[in-house]
Amino acid sequence: MKLLEDRINLEAIVLSENVLKVDAFLNHQIDPILMDELGKEFARRFANEGITKIVTIESSGIAPAVMTGLYMNVPVVFARKRKSLTLVDDLLTSSVHSFTKNETNEVSISKKYVQENDCVLIIDDFLANGQAALALAEMVQQAKAEVSGIGIVIEKSFQEGAQKLKNLGFRVESLARIASLSNGKVQFLKETTEELRK
Amino acid sequence: MKLLEDRINLEAIVLSENVLKVDAFLNHQIDPILMDELGKEFARRFANEGITKIVTIESSGIAPAVMTGLYMNVPVVFARKRKSLTLVDDLLTSSVHSFTKNETNEVSISKKYVQENDCVLIIDDFLANGQAALALAEMVQQAKAEVSGIGIVIEKSFQEGAQKLKNLGFRVESLARIASLSNGKVQFLKETTEELRK
Repeated sequence: MKLLEDRINLEAIVLSENVLKVDAFLNHQIDPILMDELGKEFARRFANEGITKIVTIESSGIAPAVMTGLYMNVPVVFARKRKSLTLVDDLLTSSVHSFTKNETNEVSISKKYVQENDCVLIIDDFLANGQAALALAEMVQQAKAEVSGIGIVIEKSFQEGAQKLKNLGFRVESLARIASLSNGKVQFLKETTEELRK
Repeated sequence: MKLLEDRINLEAIVLSENVLKVDAFLNHQIDPILMDELGKEFARRFANEGITKIVTIESSGIAPAVMTGLYMNVPVVFARKRKSLTLVDDLLTSSVHSFTKNETNEVSISKKYVQENDCVLIIDDFLANGQAALALAEMVQQAKAEVSGIGIVIEKSFQEGAQKLKNLGFRVESLARIASLSNGKVQFLKETTEELRK
């Protein structure tokens, strides 16, 4: 998605060969107009999947997920990283290790909000090792619902997550696909760039 | 706001005299169409304040804040509850005690995203004791920016937060104002209901 690639080129900061900081428009400050465009694009790509629910994970997945939900006219559920005292129902649970933050969080979703007949679109901000997306998919499958697609804002294609998810049979759509962060520069996968110049 | 009061009547669960659970549309599952309406209403109420930035706190403030930002055409910044490894700039910080969760979190915002000339609208999901809103206001003031208003989705008017914020001179606009949660029932402040029936 050219709009997103341009924004990454303009404002993202390469912190290391593995870490891209997009605090200017996604992970700390959020650009609502960009989010609106991302939501519209996810809705377009998954329009024919019969999506009934969007599942994401707090906190950075919420903005793009809610915009997608608005365009698809379906509710959004965000997995919580800690149990809260007001969330005491039966839970779907999994755990996510974040390599960036070097910590493992238990994540959970109330069984009430993902049910057997749901066709779920998973949305997240980043795809690196696939930990978060796999945890979300696992919870959806615990509910015997279907994972109908995985929508990612920024895929670090040089890490193993995207391939791992595709090998498991999931349809993954990433709006920006990064081939490399070497030498302090963002290089996008050529395919993405070419697709979007059509 | 009648739409919101109706939704609370339909789906909120009174857990105790102090705790209202709105996991069905705001705090766990999110209704994007309702969020869109809340955003539109906040934008309408604060239209003349010259807002340049919206500040909220993860996670449940994000959805209404981003929708408000979309209608006001301004960026949203969410305060983080823990420092992340990719957020190492100079920080505005404060702390928030949640009585519901019985825990105190340090919260922070990068100095980059709230600056001296900003007119800030603070948005949050709940107002009870005012802890979160006060922490956000404190960070905005640390940046020497102006708090131009505080927009709350659900105010528990029988707790002290709203009065505390008004006493400090802040303009507070709450879309639903709850007078009592006694006997397992939600009672709204009469003024709110009457205003909205006009």
